[in-house]
Amino acid sequence: MLPDEVRSILEEMRAERIRGAGWLAMRGAEAYMILAGLLEGDELKNALREMRTEVPAVNRTMASLYNLSRFIPITGNPEVVRTKAEEFVRLAGEAKREIGNIGSELIDENEVIITHSFSSAVLEIFKAAKRKGKHFRVVLTESAPDYEGIALARELDSLGVPFEVITDAQLGLFARKATLALVGADNVTRDGAVVNKAGTYLLALACHDNGVPFYVAAESFKLHPGLTSEEVEIVERPYMRQGYRVRNLLFDVTPWRYVRGVITEFGILVPPKEI
Amino acid sequence: MLPDEVRSILEEMRAERIRGAGWLAMRGAEAYMILAGLLEGDELKNALREMRTEVPAVNRTMASLYNLSRFIPITGNPEVVRTKAEEFVRLAGEAKREIGNIGSELIDENEVIITHSFSSAVLEIFKAAKRKGKHFRVVLTESAPDYEGIALARELDSLGVPFEVITDAQLGLFARKATLALVGADNVTRDGAVVNKAGTYLLALACHDNGVPFYVAAESFKLHPGLTSEEVEIVERPYMRQGYRVRNLLFDVTPWRYVRGVITEFGILVPPKEI
Repeated sequence: MLPDEVRSILEEMRAERIRGAGWLAMRGAEAYMILAGLLEGDELKNALREMRTEVPAVNRTMASLYNLSRFIPITGNPEVVRTKAEEFVRLAGEAKREIGNIGSELIDENEVIITHSFSSAVLEIFKAAKRKGKHFRVVLTESAPDYEGIALARELDSLGVPFEVITDAQLGLFARKATLALVGADNVTRDGAVVNKAGTYLLALACHDNGVPFYVAAESFKLHPGLTSEEVEIVERPYMRQGYRVRNLLFDVTPWRYVRGVITEFGILVPPKEI
Repeated sequence: MLPDEVRSILEEMRAERIRGAGWLAMRGAEAYMILAGLLEGDELKNALREMRTEVPAVNRTMASLYNLSRFIPITGNPEVVRTKAEEFVRLAGEAKREIGNIGSELIDENEVIITHSFSSAVLEIFKAAKRKGKHFRVVLTESAPDYEGIALARELDSLGVPFEVITDAQLGLFARKATLALVGADNVTRDGAVVNKAGTYLLALACHDNGVPFYVAAESFKLHPGLTSEEVEIVERPYMRQGYRVRNLLFDVTPWRYVRGVITEFGILVPPKEI
């Protein structure tokens, strides 16, 4: 059994509505650090074995949770767990900064960048581009039903980046007017498919139809080494609207052929030419 | 100057949030009948000239209003106006019934039909299919921000047609699982583009990507004889969400090449092969 302190973090992660894969991975790493402060020896080993199941189960669509649970070794030594969890957090921070550097190079002067939902990796690119003195404009979706787009609007507001908020259904209308698309990912499968907030696939199609380059920003811990696009399990959170149940699969799957590149901390992954 | 009674109908039409092109055309025809009850001779002629501008201006995206304003001749004889307005209403009713007959023939047993927004022509097809004893299931979007999808859900509920409501952003996810797409139109341009609720273009792209036939139901009075897809003026109704202005262009434009056919009362219009 996992200690209550750890269980309650996993509960909090399960309940989170707005923040994405990056935040979940950071909170998961904290859960490991707390675990290392509470248990040792065989008790710790057993708990770590349980975490290999429990952490990915928080949200099966998130590769970051799967990779985190594999990054921490099964050991009785709390110091090793703490060190590895800290290393994960440090590498994640470095990865995000490097994605900002690499991704911001894609932004030309007066670019109109369309995005969907809230990705902290994409925000990092906007911050880096702003630091480099680039001028650009962002078109972002409100992202119903949880409106995490509004959280991105607030960030851009405080950065002084001009932006427009649109409804999700207008992705096609505004993709036509954009010069670049940038989205995050919760999971990039072994076959290169991008799992991200539902609607991302629609944006990719509209970009493809209008010749707008579509890029994905994803730390390498969001690449899933084992999973294919066919095997992705998509988390659902149905809700009620005026007495009717509304289906709410949180993610959709964008095939590799619509992706111009995946911006990682190691560089930009590009689909093979024959796709 | 138009009489107040007529002006207030035009105002009501302008303010309408949920009902579409068909309803607007019917209400517009009523405005002509009221006008014919109030004016005659030169006064009527002048008012009718004004209506040629005012009626299409209620919503410039709606071909039905343009066609209605051209269907009623400029005349001083109120009887002619009344007769023509009644003829428009009668033809519209016949058109809708015939679209129901023709469109329902496209529905095979156990079809899964995806739609977006609320179209009374599409509803007519569902009713006719139900009368013919066909079994099918509907996937419909809630259609943010005015949720006219919920109005369709209520209609299907009372018809006993099984359905699922989805968010607009899930159109791609559910297009994959559908076997047929049916939407309405507010305007079919001279070059065959379909102007309909924003998001329709995204559904058409997703259907194209997944080999799902995409059909449009539109009475012939929704075909615009003069307008091309480049000239369409799209009405916008921005709103506020958590302190931010949200763009809200009501319609998008789906190119002819993604349309399998337009179901009219005269039969199904099919794009030329070379597209």
